[in-house]
Parts: sequence; structure tokens; C-alpha cells
Amino acid sequence: MGAPPPVVSETLRDYGSLVRDAVRAYLPPVEPRRYLYDLVADYPGRGGKMMRPSLCIAVARALGAPLDHLLIAAATSIELMHNAMLVHDDIEDESDLRRGKPTLHTLWGVAMAINAGDALVIRSLRPLLAAAAHTDPRLALRIIEETEHMARESAEGQALELGWRADNVVSLEERDYFEMVLKKTCWLATIHPVRMGALIAVAGDVDPAAFVRFGFFLGAAFQIQDDVLNLVSDEAVYGKDSDGDLREGKRTLMIIRLLQLADADERARLIAHLGTPLRDRRGDDVRWIRARMDHHGCIAYASQVARGMADAALAEYTRLFASVPPSRDRAFLEGLIAWVVERTS
Amino acid sequence: MGAPPPVVSETLRDYGSLVRDAVRAYLPPVEPRRYLYDLVADYPGRGGKMMRPSLCIAVARALGAPLDHLLIAAATSIELMHNAMLVHDDIEDESDLRRGKPTLHTLWGVAMAINAGDALVIRSLRPLLAAAAHTDPRLALRIIEETEHMARESAEGQALELGWRADNVVSLEERDYFEMVLKKTCWLATIHPVRMGALIAVAGDVDPAAFVRFGFFLGAAFQIQDDVLNLVSDEAVYGKDSDGDLREGKRTLMIIRLLQLADADERARLIAHLGTPLRDRRGDDVRWIRARMDHHGCIAYASQVARGMADAALAEYTRLFASVPPSRDRAFLEGLIAWVVERTS
Repeated sequence: MGAPPPVVSETLRDYGSLVRDAVRAYLPPVEPRRYLYDLVADYPGRGGKMMRPSLCIAVARALGAPLDHLLIAAATSIELMHNAMLVHDDIEDESDLRRGKPTLHTLWGVAMAINAGDALVIRSLRPLLAAAAHTDPRLALRIIEETEHMARESAEGQALELGWRADNVVSLEERDYFEMVLKKTCWLATIHPVRMGALIAVAGDVDPAAFVRFGFFLGAAFQIQDDVLNLVSDEAVYGKDSDGDLREGKRTLMIIRLLQLADADERARLIAHLGTPLRDRRGDDVRWIRARMDHHGCIAYASQVARGMADAALAEYTRLFASVPPSRDRAFLEGLIAWVVERTS
Repeated sequence: MGAPPPVVSETLRDYGSLVRDAVRAYLPPVEPRRYLYDLVADYPGRGGKMMRPSLCIAVARALGAPLDHLLIAAATSIELMHNAMLVHDDIEDESDLRRGKPTLHTLWGVAMAINAGDALVIRSLRPLLAAAAHTDPRLALRIIEETEHMARESAEGQALELGWRADNVVSLEERDYFEMVLKKTCWLATIHPVRMGALIAVAGDVDPAAFVRFGFFLGAAFQIQDDVLNLVSDEAVYGKDSDGDLREGKRTLMIIRLLQLADADERARLIAHLGTPLRDRRGDDVRWIRARMDHHGCIAYASQVARGMADAALAEYTRLFASVPPSRDRAFLEGLIAWVVERTS
């Protein structure tokens, strides 16, 4: 798998711009601004890669759907839901930075940020309800049901990750990690956008289960690369706290690998760090963990697993889209598979 | 307005029991239990007055609807959404007790409680989506849209209340209070249940705006009585922190009244208390505020306003239901108006 072709960044830019405008229309500066709607509009206004909505649009168009009101509404809803989840995730993970700026709860306090996240979750249904007026109502209900399903899977994945940290679970295997990533990351990042695109293209006459494997492989590759970037990126480029995952005690593939390869002393120190309350964790522990990861080749290993996932995604993609005629959207989808593991931010 | 007739408690018991069983069916003990679904099922399992779902069912039946799958689904969705909002409200208000037990975040930490609240919000859509399969899909979409509207109003009301506390706003008038209560309390507690019941009874052919005034008067009476009970009830009966509102600095009608009637010294001390971070507030300040409220007759005043709101609700009810034949459900609705201000828990 080589470097991603230019069509990837061009499509992310073009569909991203389209969806960003649509998102803005659903976040008007109405009252109460100071305590709610300025907060609700904050994260969506900070930009973002726009991978999720672009994926939805590209799948639908590759399968023959027009770029119509319903498709843009679905992509807009996905982007709003993604931002809503970021707000609550940042509180739950006690993250300080998001897209290069302080997180919403850092700026406004936990209480107002929780409420703004709630408002944004609910807001993400609005494009779907607005589009429903011009759509087969059964299809509209199916799309809302897809959204409910995705949000449920995401909450289950987040619960696993939070619970592992709260209980300081260290007996994790790779299959536990992949179950968590399937739920926490893949449903919203890849499976849901792909299924929504397919549902819209064929007006509901599709088995969305066919897209779960493709979405899982693509999303897992994306998440592992995200976790790698958290360790190896410049904060200025990455936009989140560098090494924040180590500080937060996040159960990444690299941490699970390190727990497996560490000797008894290393393992004891690592478990003690992970069991320390977040605010009491020491920077030199974080640097030490990072050094042990390098020693045991954990980051290189994770990058290799991510590339394996991308290869599997490509195989699924090839099977799923075998009879779909070539198009710019097809080229984007194929290129995106390389992009998720080659990107540097 | 006299004591509430027995039909009120009987109906709350009967419809409440029906809805409680339906709620339970939507909260099965599936995995991940320890980190999510045990938390999600906690508040709904603690009981509650079941006023909201009972109101929805009674309005629909009084207007001629059968007690069918759709109506029970709507009532179930309302009760789930109510519980979901309690989870996040309790975090935002830093409340310690809910229905006589520790709040969810006190038991499990803020992170897992936020996530459980999110899962419960999403779960509240499930009964509506399940019922949609056997319903006119346009009516199902309209009901989901009502739910989205209600949640939006609730978030706006919560934002006002949180913002007033965060900024220590003390220049509030009664009309500010009533705008906040309209959004924060009335939409979920009364307006939404009444509108949902009416929508179902007439299969969408109704102007739900007609029910906003009735719901507002009833909900405002309910909220003021709730705030009064926070001051005058036994904690064991009430199930929340006694005087918790004073500690939290909640802008109740009594606090607004006290700010208006207080002399300069009293006002300064009250404003200083309200501006102190929650964890640093002193118990003797709380007792002093309570004594000044008694001195200025603030609680008696609020009770009088609540009764005025109940009278207004009765007048609206009489107008709205003038042509509706007598029934047990009509008697419940009329009795409920007295109940909201006469109840002691």
C-alpha cells in the first residue's frame, strides 16, 4: 500500500467544506448563546478532518446516489454526532486539548460542557428530521435507527475503556482491545458512515451487516494510527495533548503489547502508574513508559498491525465494490484506506 | 382547590406500574453490565412518581386513544428520557442524593455516569423506533421530532440555570425564573407528555401549541412545589439532599424573592454565599438564608404563587377539555392539578 493519492485530500476538502457549511446552518447563534449555543458551536467550528461525513457521501455516490438533501443531511448528522461525542469524551478522559485549543470543559467547566454535549447530541437528529419531510418516511426512520444503533455501540465501547481504567484492568489481550475499538471507534468513524451511505444509495434495500467488516478493519487501522500519532506527533500538528494517552492510562495496543513483553519489574511499575489517580501521575513515569515502549518495539508493532488492518480493509473493499463502476468516489474510498495509516495528523 | 382525589394516586400507581414494566424491558441486563448497563438501569429501578408517563397516557385516553403499543412506547420513552436527564443534572448540580440513594456519579465517578446518561438518552428513542414498525411512519417521525424539541428546550433551561450560578447572576426577576422553568422543567415534566398524548390520540391532527399554556402552568406549579419541598421536607421522605438547593445556590423563586426583599447587609451576605465555590460554602450560611427566607415569608409567598399557577392550569384544562366526555382519565388530570401543589414528596 503506497502513499494516498491526491483525490483523498481533495475529496476531504470538497465534501468537508460542503458539510461544514451545512453543519453551520444547524448551529445558528441563537439565545441562550453565552451559556449554551456558543459552546455547542465551538468544536464544530474548530475544523476537523471530515473523514466521517466524506466517507458517507463517497459510499453513497459510488453506489449511484445523487448528492441530494438527504445525503447531505446524513453526513451533517454524522459530523454533529461526532463533535457531540468529543465533548463528553474529553470530560471523561480529562483531556486538556482538542484540535489545538483547550477542551470545552477546560474553558467552561464540566457542568456547562456536559449540557452543551447533550444539546449537540440532540441537535444531530435535526438534519435527519428535516430531511424526512422530503423522504420516504420508512427510510428516514431506518436512518434514525442506524444512528441510535451507532450511539449505543459507541457508549458500550466508551464504557469498556473507562471501566478498564477505573478498575485498572491489566489482563487485557488484543481481542479485548479490538472489541473495544470496534464499539468505541469503528461504529461512529467508519461503520456508521458507510452503512448510512449504502442505505441512502439503495433506499434501504441493503443488508448493512455486509459493511461491518469493512468498517471495522478501516476504523481499527484509523484508531491504531491515531494512538501512534499521540506518541510520535508534534503537539502543534496533532492538536491534542502529546503523550496524553500515556498520562490518561488509555489501554492502547502499545500498552497492551508492553504489558505482555515487559519483565516483572517493568510490569509492576507500569501497573502502579496505571493505578495512580490521573492528577497524581508523574511525568517521569510517562517518559519511562515511552522509553520501554521503544525498547520493546511496541510502536513499530502497532504500526504493523494497523497496516495489516488496512490490507484487510482493502480486501473487503475490493469484494464489496467489485461490481461498482469506477468513479472519483471509488478512487477516494480506495485511497482513504492508505490514508488512514499514512497520515501524520 | 381541595385535596387531590384518590383517583390521582391510583392512576399514578396503575399507569406507573405498567410503564415501569415496559421500562424494565428496555433495560435488559446485557454486557457490558459492570461499566454500563447496571448504571443505565439504576435510576429507573429506584422508582419515582411516574407523573410524566401517566400524564401522557391519561391525556391520550381522555381524548379517546386506546392503551396500545404506541401509547405505552411514548410513555416509556418519556420516563427513560426523564431518568437520563436526572443522571446528567445530578452531575451538573453536584447533587449527592437521588431518590434516597447516592447519585450515580457519587457511586461510579463522573466519567462513567456521563456515559451512562448518554446511553440512557439514546435508549429513550428505542421504544419509539420499535413502535414505529406498527405505526403510520409520519406520526412516528412527528413523535421523534417532539422528543427532539423537548430535549432542546430542556438543555436551554438547564444552560440558563447553570449559567446563572456560574456567573453568580443575582439581578433576576420572576419572569427570568419562569422562562427558565418553562424550558428546564415544564417541557419534559408536563408540556411534552401532554402533547405526545394529544398527538397520539388524534394521530397527529392537532396543534400541539394549544397545550403549551396548560403544560406551563401545571409544570411551574410542580417545580415551585418541588423547590418548597426541598426546604421543608424530611430528607427521608423527599429522597434528595434537604436544603440542597440552598447549598447549590439554585435560583429558586424563594431566592429571587429574598434578593428582592433583603436589606443591603442581608443582600451582600447572600450574594457572597452564592458566589462562593460550592465546596467552600458554609452550613451556617445555609441556615442563615433559610432563617431570612422565613423572616421575609419567601416560602409562603412561593407556595401562594404555586397555587396561583395551579388555578391557571385548571382554567386552561377546563377550556381545553370542555368538549371531552367525563372519564377516569379526565378525573385524574383534574385531580393532578391539585396534587402537584398539595403533595408532600
